[in-house]
Amino acid sequence: MPPGSPLGPSARRNVGQSNVDLLTVELGDRAYPIVIGAEVLDDLGRRMAGHLRTGSAAVITNPTVGGLYLARVESALRTADFDVTTVEIPDGEEHKSLESLARIYDRLLAARLERSSPIVALGGGVIGDLAGFAAATLLRGVPFVQVPTTLLAQVDSSVGGKTGVNHPAGKNLIGAFYQPRLVLIDIATLKTLPRRQLLAGLAEVIKYGAILDADLFALLERELAHVLALDDTLVRHLVRRCCELKAMVVQRDEFEADYRSILNFGHTLGHAIEGLTAYQRYLHGEAVAIGMAVAARVSCLKGHCNRETAERITRLLERAGLPTGIPRECPEPQLAAAIAGDKKVASGKVKFVCIEEVGRTRFEYLGAPELAALAVQ
Amino acid sequence: MPPGSPLGPSARRNVGQSNVDLLTVELGDRAYPIVIGAEVLDDLGRRMAGHLRTGSAAVITNPTVGGLYLARVESALRTADFDVTTVEIPDGEEHKSLESLARIYDRLLAARLERSSPIVALGGGVIGDLAGFAAATLLRGVPFVQVPTTLLAQVDSSVGGKTGVNHPAGKNLIGAFYQPRLVLIDIATLKTLPRRQLLAGLAEVIKYGAILDADLFALLERELAHVLALDDTLVRHLVRRCCELKAMVVQRDEFEADYRSILNFGHTLGHAIEGLTAYQRYLHGEAVAIGMAVAARVSCLKGHCNRETAERITRLLERAGLPTGIPRECPEPQLAAAIAGDKKVASGKVKFVCIEEVGRTRFEYLGAPELAALAVQ
Repeated sequence: MPPGSPLGPSARRNVGQSNVDLLTVELGDRAYPIVIGAEVLDDLGRRMAGHLRTGSAAVITNPTVGGLYLARVESALRTADFDVTTVEIPDGEEHKSLESLARIYDRLLAARLERSSPIVALGGGVIGDLAGFAAATLLRGVPFVQVPTTLLAQVDSSVGGKTGVNHPAGKNLIGAFYQPRLVLIDIATLKTLPRRQLLAGLAEVIKYGAILDADLFALLERELAHVLALDDTLVRHLVRRCCELKAMVVQRDEFEADYRSILNFGHTLGHAIEGLTAYQRYLHGEAVAIGMAVAARVSCLKGHCNRETAERITRLLERAGLPTGIPRECPEPQLAAAIAGDKKVASGKVKFVCIEEVGRTRFEYLGAPELAALAVQ
Repeated sequence: MPPGSPLGPSARRNVGQSNVDLLTVELGDRAYPIVIGAEVLDDLGRRMAGHLRTGSAAVITNPTVGGLYLARVESALRTADFDVTTVEIPDGEEHKSLESLARIYDRLLAARLERSSPIVALGGGVIGDLAGFAAATLLRGVPFVQVPTTLLAQVDSSVGGKTGVNHPAGKNLIGAFYQPRLVLIDIATLKTLPRRQLLAGLAEVIKYGAILDADLFALLERELAHVLALDDTLVRHLVRRCCELKAMVVQRDEFEADYRSILNFGHTLGHAIEGLTAYQRYLHGEAVAIGMAVAARVSCLKGHCNRETAERITRLLERAGLPTGIPRECPEPQLAAAIAGDKKVASGKVKFVCIEEVGRTRFEYLGAPELAALAVQ
């Protein structure tokens, strides 16, 4: 790599020379590979056949992603001797529901899927979470394959085994931990991703830098323009680095007994804001961006970090075109009530992720009213 | 124990002297105790508090069992500092459904259950399977406690972690493997169990003898009258022995990769018959009784056992007042179609459990049409 490359030293170390980067999430007999590359979608069938029994298989997607990539995916699967049933779920967070799940069950049981038949999620976080939960629960569990097509899903939600659906009472309140058997990430799909979705995904990349990797954070500060221009080498590095970090966290604490909660940085407030704006105003990553900016400020107020650190996080989010302020629709009492309904609440306290400095965090147990009061300060 | 006791030598070995028998299902960090005794229901809260965080808790039951035991259970929980929300689901297999599950989610989320809040199943197999699946999926998993009140649930379904609901396409087609944290078996609850339900549970006891324990089978042959009279020592022994056998199987193959399928003896045909009679005509244990009698005959026809073995199994089932013949509503073509829809079908073949002799089995892979033809012979 030439000097003056957009990648810093840690980045350079991590970029593979081959056509494809291969990581493994080490979880004993549930270990699985993550394959990262450009234009690797057509390899899906061949790669699945290496891990799974061929025969019947299902693809869950939405009309937008399906319109762009379904034909290629179905063809890749059929070439590798999979017999494909496809279920399309309408676009949008509101379809990550028990109703969509029931529709998937109906279709896949009618198609006589067997216990060895894989379910492939082709899409973003909504499709991945929904298809993963269907895979976790159909016939008490069938193999699951993630083919994430949004930046958010590629850097975060497709790895680690969290699956689930929303409930009127809150996001992801129904679900299971269920690891995929393979994650195939084609970064070329980001070229068709709407810019707003790209930025929302970038919020999660910034999160990984903020909580775990100061070099990654500095790289984003330095090379934001190239990232937004989807520089191939840079994007592949970012996706790989986030997957490495996610794998490291999941390996250490798969079921979120404690450490894995670090990934909820920005999410406690983010989920509350999403709920209070009826999942209409913000994309998940946008709400998390607000949540991170506010969490950084709360970290200052609680004396865990200096103002410069909080401002650095807010500044990068703003430069990435992401929102950082709590909207008018979320006054303190409503915010407190929404936080109190979070599924991470234990004995009335929420385990809140505070920043100490870029790349380092600590947990703080806060009552919902206290957190809401600090957040709106 | 005096000579001439109803219990044979292997039984004598296994009966504890104390007020309560204690077994452990050894599954590493998911190991859990099974407590068996008479009138132990009032200990539930104290025993749960030894394993789980107190605070909010839920009880899932049905009106019949609730009418008999809910007040005692709620009181036991409250005394141990659990704050109880109870959800009653109407009686019957038809309520083991996604609709009942949605109702449980709604109620328990409204009650603000937390991730550490246990769900207690108070009832038979339907309640246990449904409550267990709710526990597996609410907030991605909350602690689960089984308090089985039917013989079938006490000897079989409450141990081993199979949870789920039915789908119009078949029984238990949606579910998860999710182990309880405690199983508390009060054999005194069998005194209020309708005789038909008792006999249906006995079918599963006979199954454990037939597939794994010739001594248990011989004990049942010898002491059937005392069993049906609910002799306390004998019933406690039977429940304990079946739980030991179930624990042994589950420890060896928790996720039914292979060996655990042995427990499906009588169930492939049993499930098909239940489906073809719309879950109306037979209780689960009754359909399994027919399935076992027919499976024993099929085992003969395939040359795996002699006629005497098959007849011995059928005779014991008949003496217990259980059905053993395929009903008129299940002609061969319909039976073949129902078998083909079983979730154990792989590559079009069903893994069928054959008897070699009482206490010993082997698997035979059969196409659905062949099995149906043998079954009606």
